[in-house]
Amino acid sequence: MTTLLRVDASIRVDGSVSRALADSAEAAWRAEHPDGVVVRRDLGRDPLPSNVWPAVAALTMGMDAGPDADRADTTEATALAAELSAELQNADAVLLAVPLYNYGISQHVKTWIDLLLIDKDLVSGSALQGRPAIFTLARGGGYGPGTPREGWDHATPYLKRIFGDVFGMNIREAVAELTLAPVTPAMAELIPASKVAEEEAHVSAKEHGIAVAKELIAATV
Amino acid sequence: MTTLLRVDASIRVDGSVSRALADSAEAAWRAEHPDGVVVRRDLGRDPLPSNVWPAVAALTMGMDAGPDADRADTTEATALAAELSAELQNADAVLLAVPLYNYGISQHVKTWIDLLLIDKDLVSGSALQGRPAIFTLARGGGYGPGTPREGWDHATPYLKRIFGDVFGMNIREAVAELTLAPVTPAMAELIPASKVAEEEAHVSAKEHGIAVAKELIAATV
Repeated sequence: MTTLLRVDASIRVDGSVSRALADSAEAAWRAEHPDGVVVRRDLGRDPLPSNVWPAVAALTMGMDAGPDADRADTTEATALAAELSAELQNADAVLLAVPLYNYGISQHVKTWIDLLLIDKDLVSGSALQGRPAIFTLARGGGYGPGTPREGWDHATPYLKRIFGDVFGMNIREAVAELTLAPVTPAMAELIPASKVAEEEAHVSAKEHGIAVAKELIAATV
Repeated sequence: MTTLLRVDASIRVDGSVSRALADSAEAAWRAEHPDGVVVRRDLGRDPLPSNVWPAVAALTMGMDAGPDADRADTTEATALAAELSAELQNADAVLLAVPLYNYGISQHVKTWIDLLLIDKDLVSGSALQGRPAIFTLARGGGYGPGTPREGWDHATPYLKRIFGDVFGMNIREAVAELTLAPVTPAMAELIPASKVAEEEAHVSAKEHGIAVAKELIAATV
């Protein structure tokens, strides 16, 4: 039996493209691997509080956090950081559904990453080394080579840095761009392209779900 | 009379290099410009809550945030976003003190940026166009060209994207690297280099404070 940790970051439910892509990847993974278990964490719907990482960072790094800072309870903060690390380490694979927000990383994902990195056991060479990760990413505009906003996606390189270079995971990605076209009058002419991009991303997401399931099954035989 | 908005993001007070650099810049600015007013916001000590941006984003973008999401009160959330935007627009210059955390943007700074960008009046061409910004940045390691961690600083390019490309501000930066050397045994041999870097950064910070004060005084004459 293997475990897939699915982490969602969209602040939307209905209409979220990153969630819909993750649904495709998850369904394909389940179909290929009916005995598998899916554990979910929803950073977008149930955000981690903003005062937890400062509390646990101050504690573990011996920082002076100041006399009157609005910190979370340090015992609870430490327990949450440990829970998040264990949740990730207990997963054989990760499915991470993240929208690009304001050209950068989701604030809620950064909070999660900060809390994960309290645990130095998660760095490259650890138990996470070589484990599969699937990113399902949604971007409202277009950020490809030659577009006016090329280089404005500051989230994907950061996610790859952390999950690839730091955790040592093996990343597959399914990306839908132009997702704001259907709801943005100035992008109306991009609606057909956005539909094509979304369909292709669902195909990729399914393929990744199947490939990761097969990889995990092969590893446990 | 001109106003400098100083924004701190370090979760530390004592020992924070980004705050110390901002102190140098602020002192130089005040000395040059005794009539100036400094307004402060402390994102590190008094973090913006993580459930505010989802509430106001859902409201302003017509998103369906879901039936049972843990959202902030939308009236309060909208008021806070408006307050943050007004605070920035009312500033003639910005002094932003930001440490690099886990190779990325401070979660608390991203929350602030998300809330600021609710106000579409802040984009390039707006009232912020051409206004001066001073960044005082601290990084625990070394990220310069040719170092093993070149390219791992994902925060500075993002800050430049938002304050430079999006807001259209004129950015000056004072940067101290290797700030973790004095407290990290494996970096002990880098302590002298870290001290030199910190001293040079203080010189830059002061120069920027003076230059921005002179620029603002010249503009009001």
